[in-house]
Amino acid sequence: MRIAVFAGDGIGPEVTEQAVRVLQALELPGLELVEGDVGGVAYRKHGHPLPAETLEIARSADAILFGAVGDFSCDHLERHLRPEQAILGLRKELGLFANLRPARVFPGLEDLTTLREEVAATIDLLIVRELNGDVYFGEKGIRTLEDGRRQGWDMMSYAEDEVRRIAHAAFQAAMTRSKKLCSVDKANVLETSQLWRDVVIEVAKEYPEVELSHMYVDNAAMQLVKNPGQFDVIVTGNLFGDILSDQASMCVGSIGLLASASLAEGSYGLYEPIHGSAPDIAGKGLANPMATILSAAMLLRHSLGLEAEAVRIEAAVAKTLADGIKGGDLGGSAGTREIGDAVLARL
Amino acid sequence: MRIAVFAGDGIGPEVTEQAVRVLQALELPGLELVEGDVGGVAYRKHGHPLPAETLEIARSADAILFGAVGDFSCDHLERHLRPEQAILGLRKELGLFANLRPARVFPGLEDLTTLREEVAATIDLLIVRELNGDVYFGEKGIRTLEDGRRQGWDMMSYAEDEVRRIAHAAFQAAMTRSKKLCSVDKANVLETSQLWRDVVIEVAKEYPEVELSHMYVDNAAMQLVKNPGQFDVIVTGNLFGDILSDQASMCVGSIGLLASASLAEGSYGLYEPIHGSAPDIAGKGLANPMATILSAAMLLRHSLGLEAEAVRIEAAVAKTLADGIKGGDLGGSAGTREIGDAVLARL
Ligand SMILES: CC(C)[C@H](C(=O)O)[C@@H](O)C(=O)O
Ligand SMILES: CC(C)[C@H](C(=O)O)[C@@H](O)C(=O)O
Repeated sequence: MRIAVFAGDGIGPEVTEQAVRVLQALELPGLELVEGDVGGVAYRKHGHPLPAETLEIARSADAILFGAVGDFSCDHLERHLRPEQAILGLRKELGLFANLRPARVFPGLEDLTTLREEVAATIDLLIVRELNGDVYFGEKGIRTLEDGRRQGWDMMSYAEDEVRRIAHAAFQAAMTRSKKLCSVDKANVLETSQLWRDVVIEVAKEYPEVELSHMYVDNAAMQLVKNPGQFDVIVTGNLFGDILSDQASMCVGSIGLLASASLAEGSYGLYEPIHGSAPDIAGKGLANPMATILSAAMLLRHSLGLEAEAVRIEAAVAKTLADGIKGGDLGGSAGTREIGDAVLARL
Repeated sequence: MRIAVFAGDGIGPEVTEQAVRVLQALELPGLELVEGDVGGVAYRKHGHPLPAETLEIARSADAILFGAVGDFSCDHLERHLRPEQAILGLRKELGLFANLRPARVFPGLEDLTTLREEVAATIDLLIVRELNGDVYFGEKGIRTLEDGRRQGWDMMSYAEDEVRRIAHAAFQAAMTRSKKLCSVDKANVLETSQLWRDVVIEVAKEYPEVELSHMYVDNAAMQLVKNPGQFDVIVTGNLFGDILSDQASMCVGSIGLLASASLAEGSYGLYEPIHGSAPDIAGKGLANPMATILSAAMLLRHSLGLEAEAVRIEAAVAKTLADGIKGGDLGGSAGTREIGDAVLARL
């Protein structure tokens, strides 16, 4: 069992360090951890945010534990050299097409969100976002039109097989939850969405137990405010998923606790906290490592099939929170290492 | 002064009727109202959601008062015959490129939103959404690839002049408010956004007093949850604006009160409530006409230069609310006509 550890930029190294300590404390026989450089730090060392060495480490591993990328000092670089390209490149090169973003309010933390507590308490949803297609990976550029005007352009598209595989992933997730799936698109305007909707309806025939609904993305953004409890599993494309999953995460209030998985066909996956590189607090030992620790738990569950160990970690984090040990982001004062220690002590 | 009145589908006719009564009660000399068919109702009568006659009426008028379009019985029609094409067609044909969507919580109605009252009370923002470009109006289709797979595709683009004119509209709006403008894009992924950002930065030089910031759309969706009070004017493209303006509207809680303007160069504009055609309550006299009445006030202000009359209407609506006369959507029990009567009585 080989895990690639890509800590990245900003608070990435600090939070990843604590997750690694937790993984090591489990003393899993045959577990090997291999580090690699990604993001701004990789650009400075190797001239590229996703160096070939890193990609090789990723390919040789069974799963990736990822910290965060993002570095303002790279803002002036050409697009293909910016830190974000590391995560986009890994998603594409490794076929990580299914992004699972669970969002639910942790018991006892209902007061952290800007939503009313009784509304926040109803949130328990999973966003399944497609990660390999859409306007993210189409042809794009800035061109000069015949009349001399500059124009920026990006091709949005989905092919039926791309929609089919993410639809299957979403229906399967729905089968393990409350068997309700909402597919979000903009089929009243986009042909990409029309094809998306047609294919999702086709795939639905294979899951007669799942109740499928469709919602336009503007309405979904409204409904996440009005009544987030109505959703169980949401499936959507790369661009709409980017927006809605961040909106849903913030509804939970405790973004420092939210983990995510990006899965390929089979058991391979990349696991990362949904928070970013937070350069403002980087290196200060203030970042909350819980989301990364919980990402490590997801990794054990999905990629290594170690359900019991995943549950052990999740229980230790829950116990730490219940004992009132919280990072600054949750209104507490515990530092990065202190939280790591506390979780370890409760494993 | 000629106002085109396009009531449309569902609750459109009911709510528009009350707004028309309010306009007529002002006894404006030389005011002429001309009705036209749009949406599903127009399709059934004329075979098209935006008949040529309707477009002619629109062109002969100084402004349009619009109800709502949307009709499930048209769902099976080809895209170009569906009700939504009426509003998309009017926007494009009449050059209505600047959509102004103000969102603020009405005093006394803080308890209607799912946000905590103290958070809701901070909301007072204006979303300026571009309406004539982006992936809405690019080439699009469903094609069969060489290998036989179907693919849906839509071209996203913005040319520099399109960005420039909406940027000017947004900076001008910011000058009349608190001089803070946030431009929302996805420049870390989209070339369309990169050009957008470059042009907005160019235009900013002409408005040195306005503080300009940039935010990625996923972060904007988060920040609207976390701290909506941080925003004053937001400017963004057609697709992101569709999503964010609906999210922001729902944060206010009282969607039955929110009006919008879609403006062309000069004083021409279309004014509509942001709620939809609500087929479930159509024809029952239950719909709240306040958003349409407030849209009529915006029309008087922006297209006819009748500021005093606009204020008179707005004050009458506020007084009606303060007197506890509220529609079902606001937790009250007043019907459509009753609310119209109440506003008229307070004019
Ligand atoms: C960094 C960026 C390219 C990325 C995305 O848009 O996918 C991020 O927002 C995410 O959601 O992981
Ligand atoms: C009906 C639809 C095409 C339209 C849009 O997406 O622009 C609507 O959602 C709106 O915001 O006015």
